[in-house]
Amino acid sequence: MDPSETIVGVMGPGGGATDKDKSTAYELGQKIAQHSWTLLTGGRSEGVMEASMKGAVEAGGTTIGILPGTSPAGMSDYVQIPIFTGMGHARNVINIHSSRLTFACGLGAGTSSEISLALKTGTPVILLRQSPDTITYYQQLSTTLLHPADDPDDAVAKAYRLL
Amino acid sequence: MDPSETIVGVMGPGGGATDKDKSTAYELGQKIAQHSWTLLTGGRSEGVMEASMKGAVEAGGTTIGILPGTSPAGMSDYVQIPIFTGMGHARNVINIHSSRLTFACGLGAGTSSEISLALKTGTPVILLRQSPDTITYYQQLSTTLLHPADDPDDAVAKAYRLL
Amino acid sequence: MDPSETIVGVMGPGGGATDKDKSTAYELGQKIAQHSWTLLTGGRSEGVMEASMKGAVEAGGTTIGILPGTSPAGMSDYVQIPIFTGMGHARNVINIHSSRLTFACGLGAGTSSEISLALKTGTPVILLRQSPDTITYYQQLSTTLLHPADDPDDAVAKAYRLL
Amino acid sequence: MDPSETIVGVMGPGGGATDKDKSTAYELGQKIAQHSWTLLTGGRSEGVMEASMKGAVEAGGTTIGILPGTSPAGMSDYVQIPIFTGMGHARNVINIHSSRLTFACGLGAGTSSEISLALKTGTPVILLRQSPDTITYYQQLSTTLLHPADDPDDAVAKAYRLL
Repeated sequence: MDPSETIVGVMGPGGGATDKDKSTAYELGQKIAQHSWTLLTGGRSEGVMEASMKGAVEAGGTTIGILPGTSPAGMSDYVQIPIFTGMGHARNVINIHSSRLTFACGLGAGTSSEISLALKTGTPVILLRQSPDTITYYQQLSTTLLHPADDPDDAVAKAYRLL
Repeated sequence: MDPSETIVGVMGPGGGATDKDKSTAYELGQKIAQHSWTLLTGGRSEGVMEASMKGAVEAGGTTIGILPGTSPAGMSDYVQIPIFTGMGHARNVINIHSSRLTFACGLGAGTSSEISLALKTGTPVILLRQSPDTITYYQQLSTTLLHPADDPDDAVAKAYRLL
Repeated sequence: MDPSETIVGVMGPGGGATDKDKSTAYELGQKIAQHSWTLLTGGRSEGVMEASMKGAVEAGGTTIGILPGTSPAGMSDYVQIPIFTGMGHARNVINIHSSRLTFACGLGAGTSSEISLALKTGTPVILLRQSPDTITYYQQLSTTLLHPADDPDDAVAKAYRLL
Repeated sequence: MDPSETIVGVMGPGGGATDKDKSTAYELGQKIAQHSWTLLTGGRSEGVMEASMKGAVEAGGTTIGILPGTSPAGMSDYVQIPIFTGMGHARNVINIHSSRLTFACGLGAGTSSEISLALKTGTPVILLRQSPDTITYYQQLSTTLLHPADDPDDAVAKAYRLL
């Protein structure tokens, strides 16, 4: 596999992730690896970031972590390619620019900033198991870039058609 | 006036701003200046950025523009203190970190990223004339930082109590 | 004074500044204010940043601080317009993009990065009391942007001709 | 190979690189790959960036490009893992934070900013075939982080002892 071929992002809450968010993210990470896509996340050792990278690594995939800090403290053990930005939340912009498309799994304020930045920059977003209120909100902002999905299989199938 | 005392942000769409967004932003900028607060925006020569800074300058206020580029091309004439970041959308993060609170006037994907980053960083947001769908969405993300307001007078009164 | 007219940077070491660096920076800050230029620095409460802003403020000038962090901790009391980037050393790039020209007073690794970025972006640099080794080094990188100066009077006179 | 194990940077001029800089960078890239280190550069399709990544890829190595822009325009074909920052020269900071050590091959203003940022952040720098004036200059800034080297073999041997 040439890892440059397809990098996809998975965005979602860290400390605020629910058990359901994490199990969904783990399964999503597995399926991303099975498609030979490289998984990019914010790289921290909690929540959707950690769970999706664990899934990808355990399925033999490649993972990139775009870290807010300058050192491995707080980094997930499942990051294979760590990029240390030292730029705090500004690294969210890099997450989006570097992903061919992004999955939003769970919701927090950071995730919300990343969905918004994706729509701003023309990056497709797969809204995985998001609430009707969330979908309604983002439909105000884009009619073409949003792709609601019911589960990881559906999400990955929709991504496949977009890539 | 010591300009360091109170810097407040006004966030809103550029090219996508409606006439109503712009007239509201103009009035908001005037009232911000009348309170001797310094107005910070994304600094470009269109939409809510331009209109709010025009209001502030015409009312004798001070304006800061945090520009995405490296030169004055596309900058509003109403920016008094231009900060050139050369960082594109990552400057949205600086807008939020540098504002004691922020007003969201109108809505676009960039504005949405800034509201989200404000909630992420604990910065109060005055949601000025936002739709019920928008308010409902953000109430999922914060119960304490959101302050819906009906018009510039109400928005500024709410800001005054927060500062 | 319209503060947008001329923003000039003063770059120099923080904790590593010598007493001579600081007294030179103080005098330089005074002269910058006397020319009605706005002074931009990295904004921290030590070394050349602190001393130059103290000089400017005591001479009635305006100061901008581009801070590496997200809060006033460690910020100089002489910053009038604080911009919080949360981007660590990446704020050095903003310092340079936002200054019409920059003075280098004293030398440390951060200062060195800023002189280099100035040459990279075509920003004139006044090398104030720099060593022959330093001047020789930078002359490898630019023949047109470097202006060695012997003291604050000479530095400001050279800046005046460039603006 | 676990690509997370050791990421090393190669910094050097783009358009201003000499033929000697490029042939040295090519050989350095080969040797980096032979040590199973991952090569990180600024990712553009010219000069030391392009040559070192070509060497690494042709020797079976892995390459990361930290790009200043938001799209593949101007990117080297030898970038395997592209990170799009959209942050212009601020990406130089990420280059340094993400490298366990960095090689400086050739010299330009951007390279100079990266050597300086490395010394600021405590990152070792292998100064490959740099001039005596350059070595003298940087020895003012650090006594422990600088490692002059005569050729790629010497450079890689010195890196090996540091990792």
